[in-house]
Amino acid sequence: MTFLRRASDGAIHPGKMARRNAGAVMWGKRDDMIVHQTEPFNAEPPPAALAGLLTMADAFYSRNHGSIPEVDPSTWRLRVDGLVARELDLSLADLEERFPPRTEVATLACAGNRRAELMAVRDIPGQTPWGPGAISTAEWTGVRLADVLAAAGPASGAAHIAFGAPDVAQVADPPQPFGGSIPLRKALADEVLLAWSMNGQPLPTAHGGPVRVVVPGYIGARSVKWVHRITAQAHPSDNYFQTLDYRLLPPDADPTRPGEGFALGPMALTSAIISPDAGTSVAAGPTDVIGYAFAADGRTVVRVDVSRDGGQTWVQASVDDPAGPWTWQHWHATLDLPAGATEITARAWDDAGAVQPESPATVWNPMGYGNNSWPRIRVEVR
Amino acid sequence: MTFLRRASDGAIHPGKMARRNAGAVMWGKRDDMIVHQTEPFNAEPPPAALAGLLTMADAFYSRNHGSIPEVDPSTWRLRVDGLVARELDLSLADLEERFPPRTEVATLACAGNRRAELMAVRDIPGQTPWGPGAISTAEWTGVRLADVLAAAGPASGAAHIAFGAPDVAQVADPPQPFGGSIPLRKALADEVLLAWSMNGQPLPTAHGGPVRVVVPGYIGARSVKWVHRITAQAHPSDNYFQTLDYRLLPPDADPTRPGEGFALGPMALTSAIISPDAGTSVAAGPTDVIGYAFAADGRTVVRVDVSRDGGQTWVQASVDDPAGPWTWQHWHATLDLPAGATEITARAWDDAGAVQPESPATVWNPMGYGNNSWPRIRVEVR
Repeated sequence: MTFLRRASDGAIHPGKMARRNAGAVMWGKRDDMIVHQTEPFNAEPPPAALAGLLTMADAFYSRNHGSIPEVDPSTWRLRVDGLVARELDLSLADLEERFPPRTEVATLACAGNRRAELMAVRDIPGQTPWGPGAISTAEWTGVRLADVLAAAGPASGAAHIAFGAPDVAQVADPPQPFGGSIPLRKALADEVLLAWSMNGQPLPTAHGGPVRVVVPGYIGARSVKWVHRITAQAHPSDNYFQTLDYRLLPPDADPTRPGEGFALGPMALTSAIISPDAGTSVAAGPTDVIGYAFAADGRTVVRVDVSRDGGQTWVQASVDDPAGPWTWQHWHATLDLPAGATEITARAWDDAGAVQPESPATVWNPMGYGNNSWPRIRVEVR
Repeated sequence: MTFLRRASDGAIHPGKMARRNAGAVMWGKRDDMIVHQTEPFNAEPPPAALAGLLTMADAFYSRNHGSIPEVDPSTWRLRVDGLVARELDLSLADLEERFPPRTEVATLACAGNRRAELMAVRDIPGQTPWGPGAISTAEWTGVRLADVLAAAGPASGAAHIAFGAPDVAQVADPPQPFGGSIPLRKALADEVLLAWSMNGQPLPTAHGGPVRVVVPGYIGARSVKWVHRITAQAHPSDNYFQTLDYRLLPPDADPTRPGEGFALGPMALTSAIISPDAGTSVAAGPTDVIGYAFAADGRTVVRVDVSRDGGQTWVQASVDDPAGPWTWQHWHATLDLPAGATEITARAWDDAGAVQPESPATVWNPMGYGNNSWPRIRVEVR
């Protein structure tokens, strides 16, 4: 990547960039975003915007459960409390000055990414029909959550780190601000950041500015935006979005009953076809097929197979080297497409030899999370 | 686990146990081991021996590429060299005295475990037809590889840790002692051991005594037995079993051509049905079905589904909590079996929401590694 100035240690040094902004950072969005809901705002970029390593802020997917809050960076404070030796109360300047800066390229994805394919198997009422675009990648700069926690000194009983935010979700039962938690073990991992910069610019309000959590490899819901409280505790967050929502349930489970299934955290290997566009018409002959694959959880995609005949035969795609352990990887293949209705299918393999499951029926679940089945698109070849 | 004496820190302290043995440790094996080959010795326990958390040494699977060497613990030495600040030459007493003891329960599995199911899809000439028993679990005691490496001081160019052993594999091209490597990052992980004790007893010669490597979460081939050399180097091992064997190849690749596919390291989520025995006859009515599932790679199995109708309908099995991050977990379900030919199928899910792939045809590969498709057994219900 040459588009960001880098020091010899591989990090970029944004200096006081974020602090120069007196107020909340404005945000533009592409005209062709696929808007599923305007309030709360939920939108994904069109497939073509998913083809680069980094997703620009104006195309980065937006997943909100409440109204986007206006948070003034100059008055924002972060409270660190709970099972810690020293409670902290930090300003943005404190974060910048007391801890070493860290930059990391990380892909975030909504647990509901590719839900629309599950809905085609069996309806999932009341849930957003995400296509393959509820996933995006940015270069995040901030500080390591582990460094901030070290300053607070987690007590021996601390096992989970909970995040609090100001955005109130009316959809929650009862209505409450968004929140969630991650295990202490993950919170102490090198890759988890409190980020104030996205792609070298101050973090836009729409994406959690002035400061958000970035938990690479975990479902996007744990990368809490507008974070203002970090609590070390013995148990996972009791927030609605940790205890009831964002759980993977068996097919016949009741999603309103607490304790069903398990709370999602790490994500599973997935992939999607970016081009050609599903449902379009393409000319017969050699056709470029491109897509993304994401091993999440620190793994690497080492192989992607692509089929033009529903999985009867496969060709090997060329897979980009990962830009780091927490990023998606793009792949491309050239398929010689005969005329007629054609299904293009892909499947990714990670470095543990794991492959995506074949069928969306296998992974169907009552809240429509974690669809990582083989992506399939139909095109009319003329 | 109460069968081993534990100190308050959770570790067991075998003291000088291993050193009290003047010669190589003898080894018995169960009469009902399924012996695939006598020289080199390759055998797996019958399914019934897989039902406990720990596998006794006399039932633990044996995967050898050469003759089992006789190594005298009193003269055994470990050389640590390559890209290190200080070369080391350690006796067993040095290992015991210079480094803190570590105990860990870890499951090891051959990359070829469950290969027989792949062979039923398409033949894999010259390979051992492992059933579901090329996997076993033991409590290992030794020292952390990371502590030994820290004593040697890896140089900045070191990226892989290679293991050398004395057992000569005639099957290799050219014939050579067995060896392999793991990335430095994994070698420095807390869980990787140089072990001299297995289930509280001195490590039997048959399982690598006096000292073997134990690399939890990785294919068994990297847990090199009778290790006598550890080399820090910039590149993976150039041993035959790293460069040509133990690779996952695309179906149409030539297994004799170097560089095809990718070298296996971490393992993927798998499971197997232990009871009832495949191919047997069982009485109609409620039937206990038990099995194991192994998430490997530090993950946890959180759900196992079991089907009596080839995957049309599923029931949830009860899944044991993991004994640690590196162990298999057992599960059981009760199926009400109607009379007739019946297929029992299972599929495990890990805490990332990953599920095993459905079909052995999906994972078939020319060397028959990494079969983690849904286990299926047929029984006659009378």
